[in-house]
Amino acid sequence: MTVQERLSALRGLMKEQGLMAYVVPGNDPHASEYMASHWCEMQWLSGFNGESGTVVVTLDRALLWTDSRYYLQAGIELKDSTIELMRESDIDCPSVIDWLASNVQGVVGVNPEMFSVNDFAQWSEQIEMKSVDLIKPLWTEGRPAIPNDKLYPYSADFAGETVESKLARIREIVNRKSSNRKWALVISALDEIAWLLNIRGNDVEYNPVVISYAVLEDDKCTLFVNAEKMDSPAQNYFDFNNIEVKPYEAVYDYLASLTGTVIYDGARVNEALYEAFPKDTKKINTKSPILIDKAKKNAVELEGERIAMRQDAAALTRFFKWLEEEAFANGQTQTECTLADKLHDFRAMGENFVEESFGTIAGYQGNGAIVHYSATEDSCAEVKPQGMLLLDSGGQYLDGTTDITRTVWLGGRIPEQAKLDYTYVLKGHIALQRARFPRGTRGNQLDALAKQYMWEAGITFGHGTGHGVGHFLGCHEGPQNVRTDNNPTALEVGHIISDEPGIYRTGKWGIRTENLITVIPAKQTKVTTTEDEWLAFETLTLCFYDTSLIEMSLMTEDEIDWLNAYHVRVYKETAPLLNADEAAYLARKCAAIEL
Amino acid sequence: MTVQERLSALRGLMKEQGLMAYVVPGNDPHASEYMASHWCEMQWLSGFNGESGTVVVTLDRALLWTDSRYYLQAGIELKDSTIELMRESDIDCPSVIDWLASNVQGVVGVNPEMFSVNDFAQWSEQIEMKSVDLIKPLWTEGRPAIPNDKLYPYSADFAGETVESKLARIREIVNRKSSNRKWALVISALDEIAWLLNIRGNDVEYNPVVISYAVLEDDKCTLFVNAEKMDSPAQNYFDFNNIEVKPYEAVYDYLASLTGTVIYDGARVNEALYEAFPKDTKKINTKSPILIDKAKKNAVELEGERIAMRQDAAALTRFFKWLEEEAFANGQTQTECTLADKLHDFRAMGENFVEESFGTIAGYQGNGAIVHYSATEDSCAEVKPQGMLLLDSGGQYLDGTTDITRTVWLGGRIPEQAKLDYTYVLKGHIALQRARFPRGTRGNQLDALAKQYMWEAGITFGHGTGHGVGHFLGCHEGPQNVRTDNNPTALEVGHIISDEPGIYRTGKWGIRTENLITVIPAKQTKVTTTEDEWLAFETLTLCFYDTSLIEMSLMTEDEIDWLNAYHVRVYKETAPLLNADEAAYLARKCAAIEL
Repeated sequence: MTVQERLSALRGLMKEQGLMAYVVPGNDPHASEYMASHWCEMQWLSGFNGESGTVVVTLDRALLWTDSRYYLQAGIELKDSTIELMRESDIDCPSVIDWLASNVQGVVGVNPEMFSVNDFAQWSEQIEMKSVDLIKPLWTEGRPAIPNDKLYPYSADFAGETVESKLARIREIVNRKSSNRKWALVISALDEIAWLLNIRGNDVEYNPVVISYAVLEDDKCTLFVNAEKMDSPAQNYFDFNNIEVKPYEAVYDYLASLTGTVIYDGARVNEALYEAFPKDTKKINTKSPILIDKAKKNAVELEGERIAMRQDAAALTRFFKWLEEEAFANGQTQTECTLADKLHDFRAMGENFVEESFGTIAGYQGNGAIVHYSATEDSCAEVKPQGMLLLDSGGQYLDGTTDITRTVWLGGRIPEQAKLDYTYVLKGHIALQRARFPRGTRGNQLDALAKQYMWEAGITFGHGTGHGVGHFLGCHEGPQNVRTDNNPTALEVGHIISDEPGIYRTGKWGIRTENLITVIPAKQTKVTTTEDEWLAFETLTLCFYDTSLIEMSLMTEDEIDWLNAYHVRVYKETAPLLNADEAAYLARKCAAIEL
Repeated sequence: MTVQERLSALRGLMKEQGLMAYVVPGNDPHASEYMASHWCEMQWLSGFNGESGTVVVTLDRALLWTDSRYYLQAGIELKDSTIELMRESDIDCPSVIDWLASNVQGVVGVNPEMFSVNDFAQWSEQIEMKSVDLIKPLWTEGRPAIPNDKLYPYSADFAGETVESKLARIREIVNRKSSNRKWALVISALDEIAWLLNIRGNDVEYNPVVISYAVLEDDKCTLFVNAEKMDSPAQNYFDFNNIEVKPYEAVYDYLASLTGTVIYDGARVNEALYEAFPKDTKKINTKSPILIDKAKKNAVELEGERIAMRQDAAALTRFFKWLEEEAFANGQTQTECTLADKLHDFRAMGENFVEESFGTIAGYQGNGAIVHYSATEDSCAEVKPQGMLLLDSGGQYLDGTTDITRTVWLGGRIPEQAKLDYTYVLKGHIALQRARFPRGTRGNQLDALAKQYMWEAGITFGHGTGHGVGHFLGCHEGPQNVRTDNNPTALEVGHIISDEPGIYRTGKWGIRTENLITVIPAKQTKVTTTEDEWLAFETLTLCFYDTSLIEMSLMTEDEIDWLNAYHVRVYKETAPLLNADEAAYLARKCAAIEL
């Protein structure tokens, strides 16, 4: 079927259902960042292969909303499809819901699996919605199956806590809040299920999660997962821990049989699950207690992160040494893609390495200024041994998840503005790592610490300064972050966040510097005036900065002391994993700098 | 009547009404910071004369909630009253509503004039409330009348805008939001009425407001104010501007006659007004458009502020010169109160001075560490020419409102910790004034800039870093501020806020340094990366800092440059108002400092 034939068939079904529009968002039923291809309904219907987009089909028009990363690709892929491109990064582009409210009179159909409860409710305030899956009857040929890779128990030696202990703790949290012992907590976010049950899998790229649902009750726990994913050790593991296993699709019947109170996180649980809750149950929409608990890493998880960081540091040292000494030797050429591949190779040498934690962003010169830039084999730029390279990458290790950005100068005369930009970014990046703050402080209160120096120069950036990071799970997780938004979450001991300010000059360069940091109790000082508990950050990431890009006249002694102490630590913790040549290279990179 | 007799009479009325409790909060019907004595029902009933408190009377108990400022006073004044003191600053003290919810079964009565619509609604979620004024029938003897001082038109030469223009603009704002032209905006906050109608008065201390209500409609404007407050120029002014004047109490009948849409700010409009709205009107609870507009000062208001600041600067210079050279000469003694009086005398010499903008806080040594400390004639400490003095004061001038805090060392050896504390405060105070930030930034995003240096040393403070300030109106106004709270208001050009970090050491000293600053468009820089509009602050307050308290080793060159440039400006703008001796003194105080 061509895209036009698919649209036409969809319109036929819409007419049967009395729908004036049908919406296909680029979501899966688990609110995942990375999706299995089975759920790429948006891509299948439109022929557009970008990772983010929403298709709206009316009886006489079809439109695709996507952001500026994909304008070019969408323009090419939508040709001959009759689908109009809606450029959602443009200021004057209406949102999907506003467009529907203004342009469609009548009922709008959606697959409720692809909408969170909260989004569905919000849209319903403006338009009449109907839950109906019209893609399933159409996409019968060539639809990829739901991945059925084997799942595996994740040892408490890595997780730092047994599933028994986690289940008991979450039950205790819910029991403290619920007056009724007859409750069921519905869990559909894959990282929450993986964390709670200490399981991992290979179903999607970059995130070691298992496609499944789970329902936790005071007296039992049920995992809904396809039988193909289970082997005998997995079955034994679940039996041992009193976790009942049912087929993935059985979750709907199970939910329909619940009584008492149903507890769910409307931001993550999908509308189809919600519609399965029995009418006479009490429904509580609340931020997931698992999400909140998972974010506070235990001592074993943090120690694992430190181990993974050393592996990552060795890989990055080898990569940068290769880049300086070998990459361009003997007339060899490199592209953004060959560099990303090489870095992957070095990471893959690391102990307990599983996969990358996201697609490496290697942005050379002006490409570095495109936030979320993703080079493809077809489009990636040749990298020459001169100019600026931004490299944002990370790994999934059994020990933990890494995410690091370094920006380096490859050769040639460094423009003065490049040094200023690099130094504003570095000063902000250091200021956040050095921050001390009273317990109760939110990430948005600290955001300006990372921006103050570039703000003074009239520069800012549009992305968050920091996102939460999972432990051998999602590279992006909530609820904590460091952004301008009014996120009410206070930073707590054990939270891991990234610290990644940046400056982007269109057509010239992008500069971003990123470490992962974790919240720790601050050392007591003698002069404290109040009873506040004090928090600070421990830096987890271990990799040198390109000191050739620092404009020393902007640096304070405190900042230089911090940087030199960090470089001492980087060398000390990484060198044992390196051979003599590599260690000598790292020692040069970590040499102390002076005002 | 004694307090016990009042309580007994109140219980009699409660029984008649079937009430199990009656609550008397320390509010007036206008959500005022400073109240006319007519409304001091809490004080009358309890015999407690503090400015803040809430009395709860049940059939067998009576309790008074107040904060730590008043524990001592309340302990004395409640003696023999049978009223129990509830120490609301203590962590384990339940809030009034939580106490009521746990301890009272049955209906709780309140005077609805004393509750905002929002507070009444919030309490009603937990307890059954009944609107009934039981104090009026009891407090018949000796109750002060509602103040009837004359009101006066406030010239557009000071206000910078005619009432005609303001009315037109607010109407336009409401019309843009309301689909129905038949609307009424109910205004009960006294500073909003004074600003909107360009009137001022003398009804309460510190705030030049007029006790009144106002209702703005698309085709008329009605002011509800007692006839005694009007003289012939005032009547002519209102006639000329088509503002109808009705008696203060007539507001209830007027509200009852409204049709269409009634718009009100539930945080400021009281429950009694709300209950007068006709049932069949559409009611919209929204942040007051007048509050939002009033906060953005026009060019004339800002110029007036600058004029007032020069008057204030002259007064402060004369005061500090007197303090150093004369106050303790010839064996004279001083107290916190005599200093406050003397400062008042110097301010009163200023052109267009009307009154103080709040009660001066003169906190000597350990008293400076008591936030909101207020010395009384009976209790105020003797001040000696040694140690630390915190002085927080302000003036109401026809040109504008001032509010300034300086902390000075009076003599003796300065403890090293005092210099550190003073310098952490000063660095934060300077950092906020020097901040540049993109449009859209909220005050809570900048809060950490003022705290970062003391945080590094493990020190923080419990009050807000900055509050909004009115123009010849309230010294505290919204919606903008600089606090940790999640206030969604972005800083906008023309906002005035205070910048007043502090460090408080119980029993030793309090250090606070405060300037008023206003948001201005920032100068463009050449390096801007985005289309953001940039904002910055202009410092309005003009007064030297005590440089003897600065620990120079903590200061950066940028900070010293800023301070020296500020001192040059202070001298230049203040000296023309001083005699030669005073100018010479100021020149010494403003002498450049060097690293």
